[in-house]
Amino acid sequence: MDEFQLIRRYFQPLGAASADVALGIGDDCALLQVPPGEELAVTTDTLVAGRHFPLQTAACDIGWKALAVNLSDLAAMGAMARWVTLALTLPENDAEWLTGFCAGFGALLHASGVALVGGDTTRGPLSITVTALGSAPAGRAMRRSGAQPGDLVCVTGALGDAALALRRLGEPDLPPALRERLDRPQPRLAAGLTLRQYAHAAIDISDGLAGDLGHLLDASGVGAELEAASLPQSYAFARHAMPPAERTALQLHGGDDYELCVCLPPDRLEAAQGRLDVPLTAVGRIVAEPGLRLTGADGVTMPIPPHGYRHFT
Amino acid sequence: MDEFQLIRRYFQPLGAASADVALGIGDDCALLQVPPGEELAVTTDTLVAGRHFPLQTAACDIGWKALAVNLSDLAAMGAMARWVTLALTLPENDAEWLTGFCAGFGALLHASGVALVGGDTTRGPLSITVTALGSAPAGRAMRRSGAQPGDLVCVTGALGDAALALRRLGEPDLPPALRERLDRPQPRLAAGLTLRQYAHAAIDISDGLAGDLGHLLDASGVGAELEAASLPQSYAFARHAMPPAERTALQLHGGDDYELCVCLPPDRLEAAQGRLDVPLTAVGRIVAEPGLRLTGADGVTMPIPPHGYRHFT
Repeated sequence: MDEFQLIRRYFQPLGAASADVALGIGDDCALLQVPPGEELAVTTDTLVAGRHFPLQTAACDIGWKALAVNLSDLAAMGAMARWVTLALTLPENDAEWLTGFCAGFGALLHASGVALVGGDTTRGPLSITVTALGSAPAGRAMRRSGAQPGDLVCVTGALGDAALALRRLGEPDLPPALRERLDRPQPRLAAGLTLRQYAHAAIDISDGLAGDLGHLLDASGVGAELEAASLPQSYAFARHAMPPAERTALQLHGGDDYELCVCLPPDRLEAAQGRLDVPLTAVGRIVAEPGLRLTGADGVTMPIPPHGYRHFT
Repeated sequence: MDEFQLIRRYFQPLGAASADVALGIGDDCALLQVPPGEELAVTTDTLVAGRHFPLQTAACDIGWKALAVNLSDLAAMGAMARWVTLALTLPENDAEWLTGFCAGFGALLHASGVALVGGDTTRGPLSITVTALGSAPAGRAMRRSGAQPGDLVCVTGALGDAALALRRLGEPDLPPALRERLDRPQPRLAAGLTLRQYAHAAIDISDGLAGDLGHLLDASGVGAELEAASLPQSYAFARHAMPPAERTALQLHGGDDYELCVCLPPDRLEAAQGRLDVPLTAVGRIVAEPGLRLTGADGVTMPIPPHGYRHFT
């Protein structure tokens, strides 16, 4: 099977018809219709085997995750997810692996109402680059730069699950709920669309809350004070016995949460919460003084350095 | 240096301000303004070291080529090139390599009036995925599927240079003009915009004329008859002593030309030629009977199998 047959067999079936796709997979470019009055939102992310996912990760989970991490960036802008391209580099043409990969990728495409409109398949060390395209009404997308002193810092869902799952990987009693959070992150697309109407600023949490919130604070020229006791925990995370400092470290610096962090005025919190399909928890407050500080369970406030996951260090 | 510093040092300077970029590098997504009445054209291509370019290729040439092969796809649709994202996977943070890569990538960005609007930098085996975004008036982009019996098959520029350069790589007397054609392909963007007004169908020649024209014929449900004597040769290519069959094979099946192949009615050829910045040569004719046939210098007509470069075979 050459790459053209491979595209026809595995990827063309994922390129479902959509009213905003004038031309899908199979020509030099896809042709797409951005709704009038909307801006195009574009993001791209690469997943490398052994770096962004453990080598033993199931193909279907890799497919899901490669798409999820990109859709999460659209969610963070409050953009409607519309189209993706997939550039897949594979060591060999492995039918079982490809079938699995496409099942995971396709499941999230379908769940998100997103169309696969193009891509490229090459031979080489396993690596997946997805480019996700969406749209938002002109001037209305959420940016990192709008946070204001007095805003609440809020996060969707729960923090730390994926980091805990990664640490416990291979343990026979790893709760499936934690493993699911590592392998099948849920891009908060619906939440992003809703939060766009309430938030001053937003970012998605991919490298840990401290690091990603740090980017938002830099972009906004402000600081923040968080409370360790407020950081939302899932049931499976809360049940796992850990010293408090370790718990907080996983929630602040662990990666792969793919939740949204948004900054909004306190008087909008309740209205936003009432319209979301996920919990929204206030975990701190934006202040004028730069830097990120955390008040621990012991009531002591300490500066926390932003150290999310970084390549090349 | 971590990846954020790396982006600031090397890539953010390439993200030149452009009126259609509402938000460039540095947030979760870029925000872009597609002109009213235009469709978005999207394409993505990956270059893997040792597969899409020889391992000893200079970093600046890799940067140029990674962008060129994607812009060539926009050219083939007759789209205006507007924006690109760059996903770069690197074995190490090598300042000299990055400086060279960005010089080549940046030179073509500048020459093409295209803005770098986002990307991703990860550590791993060298691989470059570019997603190129452009636009064309709705319904006016050139597709592969419109060729009609009676159309002339035309190609821009000359064929076979890059394939000859690749074969002679390392020879001390390799003419620089051939090497330039391998390392610095020129995406035919201006030609594509012009040809959009004349052509029924188009494709870019990346895997060899026979293979790529084959895709166009399949999409259009037609066949074609080519003449070996008509295939355009550069001066450097024509000067190189070769048996006629070998010459034709390089021109038909050699890759990396990045010229355009277009099908247009004979009475439009002269007008199109007069408005182009590159030569446009008629090399054959579209016929109703499927398949691709070639009349050699000896006057004998033979079917030719499409075999461009294929991964996974």
